[in-house]
Amino acid sequence: MSGVDELKFKISELETELQNYRKNVVREKIEKMSSEVVDSNPYSRLMALQRMGIVNEYERIRQKGVAIVGIGGVGSVVADMLTRCGIGKLILFDYDKVELANMNRLFFTPDQAGLSKVEAAAKTLNFINPDVDIRTHNYNITTVESFDKFLETIKTGGIEGNTRVDLVLSCVDNFEARMAINTACNELGLNWFESGVSENAVSGHIQFIKPGETACFGCAPPLVVAENIDEKTLKREGVCAASLPTTMGIVAGMLVQNTLKYLLKFGEVSDYLGYNALIDFFPKMSLKPNPTCDDQYCIKRQKEYLAKPKEVIQEKVDISESPLHEDNFYGIELISENEPMVTSTTQSLEIGHGLKLAYEAPIVETATKQSADSKTDDISLDDLMAQMKSI
Amino acid sequence: MSGVDELKFKISELETELQNYRKNVVREKIEKMSSEVVDSNPYSRLMALQRMGIVNEYERIRQKGVAIVGIGGVGSVVADMLTRCGIGKLILFDYDKVELANMNRLFFTPDQAGLSKVEAAAKTLNFINPDVDIRTHNYNITTVESFDKFLETIKTGGIEGNTRVDLVLSCVDNFEARMAINTACNELGLNWFESGVSENAVSGHIQFIKPGETACFGCAPPLVVAENIDEKTLKREGVCAASLPTTMGIVAGMLVQNTLKYLLKFGEVSDYLGYNALIDFFPKMSLKPNPTCDDQYCIKRQKEYLAKPKEVIQEKVDISESPLHEDNFYGIELISENEPMVTSTTQSLEIGHGLKLAYEAPIVETATKQSADSKTDDISLDDLMAQMKSI
Repeated sequence: MSGVDELKFKISELETELQNYRKNVVREKIEKMSSEVVDSNPYSRLMALQRMGIVNEYERIRQKGVAIVGIGGVGSVVADMLTRCGIGKLILFDYDKVELANMNRLFFTPDQAGLSKVEAAAKTLNFINPDVDIRTHNYNITTVESFDKFLETIKTGGIEGNTRVDLVLSCVDNFEARMAINTACNELGLNWFESGVSENAVSGHIQFIKPGETACFGCAPPLVVAENIDEKTLKREGVCAASLPTTMGIVAGMLVQNTLKYLLKFGEVSDYLGYNALIDFFPKMSLKPNPTCDDQYCIKRQKEYLAKPKEVIQEKVDISESPLHEDNFYGIELISENEPMVTSTTQSLEIGHGLKLAYEAPIVETATKQSADSKTDDISLDDLMAQMKSI
Repeated sequence: MSGVDELKFKISELETELQNYRKNVVREKIEKMSSEVVDSNPYSRLMALQRMGIVNEYERIRQKGVAIVGIGGVGSVVADMLTRCGIGKLILFDYDKVELANMNRLFFTPDQAGLSKVEAAAKTLNFINPDVDIRTHNYNITTVESFDKFLETIKTGGIEGNTRVDLVLSCVDNFEARMAINTACNELGLNWFESGVSENAVSGHIQFIKPGETACFGCAPPLVVAENIDEKTLKREGVCAASLPTTMGIVAGMLVQNTLKYLLKFGEVSDYLGYNALIDFFPKMSLKPNPTCDDQYCIKRQKEYLAKPKEVIQEKVDISESPLHEDNFYGIELISENEPMVTSTTQSLEIGHGLKLAYEAPIVETATKQSADSKTDDISLDDLMAQMKSI
């Protein structure tokens, strides 16, 4: 074989190897979501939610912009799910790098070790669905300077430009970042979801915070204090929190499912949903805001909420856009919906990663989520619970 | 530039392009799981489950072999989670191809469209964690010939060779495949988990089937009949089932979490766990086997189970390997564990994809999962529940 032939053979070998990689090109953007049932349509199974009577107009999801703070074991899966659902815009915040030590959770792959989490995530997400507008912010939102950038971004980063995002999703692992999000969202009157996974990896929760309407993250300060050890501190000390792809995947699923219900107006959005993996227990509750909350914007939002005409408050679900499913979807009697699934000790159950209980305080608000038309439910539940406990 | 120089330049260009891809090399295998807290250790967060008191000896997971049937929206995420958890061996069964229409669920990427699901999955999983022994079977287990291969594989595919797998996980979307798994596992007396997601994408379930001890998939035949339309049939007719990455991710998480609890002996394994996404309702129940089940192997296993000395039956959890967590992990009173969370209408709640109710039959067994030491719990709960309902 001559030198030229050898070179040509080398080229053909390299090109063959490249063929396997080059397929990784990003697909063409899709202008309009179609419900056509063909193998090549990435939206057919989502648009089917309309035919199934679950969602009225699925394509509205393209008009929604969401910020995700923390692109770790929960946040990356949240971003993955929303991207595959075809959301309009995602704004990702993180300042950490991918490590091999993160490979026990979904989403990131070993080749991404050392890359910035937001950059690595954005690349994968854009490849999965180029229709989603992905923006990245690689900084710590708890520093003074970065906090202002964060606030400005969620205030003006909405899908239409210069509007607020529709929702902020907190997937962080420390107290300071949660308080930063809380401060920003109280100031803007912006709804957000808090989420967390315990350090022993077997419990987690999500909490929907509507400034003025439900308890903000600062409303119950005596109950939670920062442990002052986040993952980085723990790592320096040669210990680390446990984590599981299962618990984090379930918390991410609960978070995105409630995000979809909120954005697309179907089903009931849970105010608080916990998960105890050891016994498959999923407590639900509602938390009212604290009238003596330290956050002045929280107090302001509470006054605004109380001042709203009652019709406006109740008319949260627009009848014309109300879900299509029947009230009693499965013909099942939802007894536990009208039961106090969580008792007064429960507020201490699901404390996020990086937090611990300061002390066992008396509970300010332990009402369970009550349906609007069951106003008498709390009459003698305490007595009944006492009886049940005594059995 | 001479012809040879041009060829050399071409080679250098191709090699540069390949550099970007070749980083995707599979990492070295790890001989022994370490709990060392360094960024480069993919098992540190899992081994931390020992220090946290959740699992006794996490590394036992390397001695476990599991078969997953159906590598779709649930099965692929199940495989992903178990791979990241470092399970010893996974045997994947599917005969379908990846399509762009699957991109609304986690795991597969657009470049894999057209590839066999098991092959595409195996490649990704091996890349994520080369320590896991991944085997693929690309055929439909419901044909007579393939069923025998399937039976032989789960009978001899265990981690030690010529032993049974530790568990079979059903993540299929049709009745026939579920019945095939049921038949095989009844014959072998092999424990398996059934899972399913509804066609409207907003509910799902997992069910633990221990032949002879809990109801098998054929034990309640009047309750479920095949709709005789799987996804392929639906597609031909120009309609398709809805699906969401959230619901499928949550069902996969519930399935793998209970698999981990079973394999590593911690927490309580749920016999049945449902999920209703619209209201975040997670019903639990236990189903006893039907003494008149049509499956003769089921009857045989029931007799064997009843004939077991009581000590053997109760000694399911080996004390020496019992979980390290305290009985009352969070100091929470788990009242709802002792309540009938599901009523007699509930057995009809969570019917898997491809199944529908034949009719509303009277329920054979509606007992809730009762803890072994709460034998008096059911004394007057009915009265209390009636009172609660009447409030």
